[in-house]
Amino acid sequence: MNFEIEHSDNNSKARAGFITTSHGVVKTPIFMPVGTQGTVKAVTPRTLKNEINASIILSNTYHLYLRPGTQILEKAGGLHNFMNWDETILTDSGGYQVYSLTHLRKLKDDGVEFRSHLDGSKHFFTPEKVIQIQRKIGSDIMMPLDECTPYPCDYDYAKKSKDLTSRWALLNKEAFEISNPLYGYEQALFGIVQGSVYKDLRKSSAEDLTALNFDGYSIGGLAVGEPTNIMYDIVDFTTNILPEEKPRYLMGVGRPENILEAIQRGIDMFDCVMPTRNARNAYLFTSNGVISMRNAIYKDDFQPVDENCNCYTCRNFSRAYLRHLFLSREILALELASIHNLSFYLNLVYEARKQILNDSYSEWKNEIINKLSINIKTIKEG
Amino acid sequence: MNFEIEHSDNNSKARAGFITTSHGVVKTPIFMPVGTQGTVKAVTPRTLKNEINASIILSNTYHLYLRPGTQILEKAGGLHNFMNWDETILTDSGGYQVYSLTHLRKLKDDGVEFRSHLDGSKHFFTPEKVIQIQRKIGSDIMMPLDECTPYPCDYDYAKKSKDLTSRWALLNKEAFEISNPLYGYEQALFGIVQGSVYKDLRKSSAEDLTALNFDGYSIGGLAVGEPTNIMYDIVDFTTNILPEEKPRYLMGVGRPENILEAIQRGIDMFDCVMPTRNARNAYLFTSNGVISMRNAIYKDDFQPVDENCNCYTCRNFSRAYLRHLFLSREILALELASIHNLSFYLNLVYEARKQILNDSYSEWKNEIINKLSINIKTIKEG
Repeated sequence: MNFEIEHSDNNSKARAGFITTSHGVVKTPIFMPVGTQGTVKAVTPRTLKNEINASIILSNTYHLYLRPGTQILEKAGGLHNFMNWDETILTDSGGYQVYSLTHLRKLKDDGVEFRSHLDGSKHFFTPEKVIQIQRKIGSDIMMPLDECTPYPCDYDYAKKSKDLTSRWALLNKEAFEISNPLYGYEQALFGIVQGSVYKDLRKSSAEDLTALNFDGYSIGGLAVGEPTNIMYDIVDFTTNILPEEKPRYLMGVGRPENILEAIQRGIDMFDCVMPTRNARNAYLFTSNGVISMRNAIYKDDFQPVDENCNCYTCRNFSRAYLRHLFLSREILALELASIHNLSFYLNLVYEARKQILNDSYSEWKNEIINKLSINIKTIKEG
Repeated sequence: MNFEIEHSDNNSKARAGFITTSHGVVKTPIFMPVGTQGTVKAVTPRTLKNEINASIILSNTYHLYLRPGTQILEKAGGLHNFMNWDETILTDSGGYQVYSLTHLRKLKDDGVEFRSHLDGSKHFFTPEKVIQIQRKIGSDIMMPLDECTPYPCDYDYAKKSKDLTSRWALLNKEAFEISNPLYGYEQALFGIVQGSVYKDLRKSSAEDLTALNFDGYSIGGLAVGEPTNIMYDIVDFTTNILPEEKPRYLMGVGRPENILEAIQRGIDMFDCVMPTRNARNAYLFTSNGVISMRNAIYKDDFQPVDENCNCYTCRNFSRAYLRHLFLSREILALELASIHNLSFYLNLVYEARKQILNDSYSEWKNEIINKLSINIKTIKEG
């Protein structure tokens, strides 16, 4: 994996760059559609690539490990083959899902024991194990096992947890170094900065990780319920410590305005279920705010969802038709809405990139956030 | 609408022809994917046209009348515009749904009163009304209001019902003659032959209708539970009476082998929910019979669904992946399975057409039916 900064904005910390992996070039800043179970929900890989212009997706180690299982993925020659996605794939470590989805989990010094949310079966994830699993998945960018602290989180717990994540980071890195990719192409490994909302912990975590020289750095433990200004402050603080020359990934973020504010603070990569999940709930992003496609005001509105959008859905279908499909519980509603929301997110980061190259990012961002925020309160959280 | 027979098979009653409507040319024999609520379930119109090669779809007057309603369709400029389908559309009359879906229906001499399956609201369909509705839908080929008798059906009821359908046929035709299309292109009207399993009634029905000179003739009241050999016999008998030079449509049929047998007996057009409904239930048609995609034997089967199929699904995805998607309840499973099953049906009728042109239809049909029947018993009825 290679990361190159094409241009840094003159008036902010925003950067426009390229991540080159064995499966292609990812222009940053980038949004990664979420393909939890080896499919970005309701969208074919062809549409994802050619229509939505996604260059990288995120998939979930925890889910893939449980189903279809690493044995199937290995026989398939990895996840790219299995799901027919020939662009870049990033996988999380499964740590976040272990904390959020499973019951009866036990955090131990050498890993985490948990029961499957599917069948209750018992499993144990260690730093070594999640590297082995991700070798079998064959993702281009792997994540290490970490502990994601909740919000609020007291200082003592946050410190202990940060120390554990740092110890695991070393074990993750060692497991990565001594293992080889299975499918003939390189895989990269990021580190994950933790430390909750405490700057000294974030600093220490970032220093622990950079000492291990990962291929990139994720910021975890944010977007877990803390006030937005705290999130922005921690992001700003952390990107000041992380090395310039490595990509930075803010995990699980977020709303369009969160993404734009984080880009300004030096973040290059994002993922969130918000565009796809909201789409399935009939909430569509537009350049003038979010609209609920079930609303009766759209029953005879023959405009596209967003007049400024050129996606397949907006080029070919009206709000009235989408509303009809949602009310009729038609599967096509979910497809068309997902295509639009993902296109909206990708168009947003591609436009952000242009503005960075043009040194006009900050003014553009302020203008666009004002528009976007109009109905943003009405949407469901991702 | 124009119908032209390109070639009649030398060894059977099978015909290869063209139906030309205001929206394109339909090569016959043809299968029409069902788009009940203004969408062929789980498939975008682009995929339906470019990938599945559908040239005509069927939509349902009853459903569209109740939702989104004719007012919306009229404002949209008709169903083609509303759903973004620029190929041919045929609509049924709504009669069948009134009998099968609604409760509290009352058959009267001048029409049928029913309550909506959506909200219980009361409605009345007459021959004139269903023509008016279909004018607003703007379908290229319209169906008249008829009564579809169940099976079994005693002779006296079948006779009375056939007489009613014949009287209504005249009213349908008159309503058609005195009304005009709303969107600047011609619409055609078919007649529907009824008469249950009684040949004298079928003969009389066919004669009543041909006297009215419809643009084509449907055979209704079959595939309602009667033994297959009776269905074939009635089809064979009825096509002998219907005029050569008009297209013939066997409504609601059916399984692949039913379609092939009916083609041999002179039928040109078919519709059935079977390919799409079975797809959503994980039953996939292959040239070697039907397979249940949830079956554990496919968990590490990396072959395509059907090695002889060149559809998007078979070109790009394995049985193992489809099984994973079905077990994971992913929407993409429904899309990919629907694409395959519809492609299977369309490929089947296009291949039938080639065989007719080659005067080899009967031998080919016998061979293919043997293969198709292998697991056909295991599939769910459409």
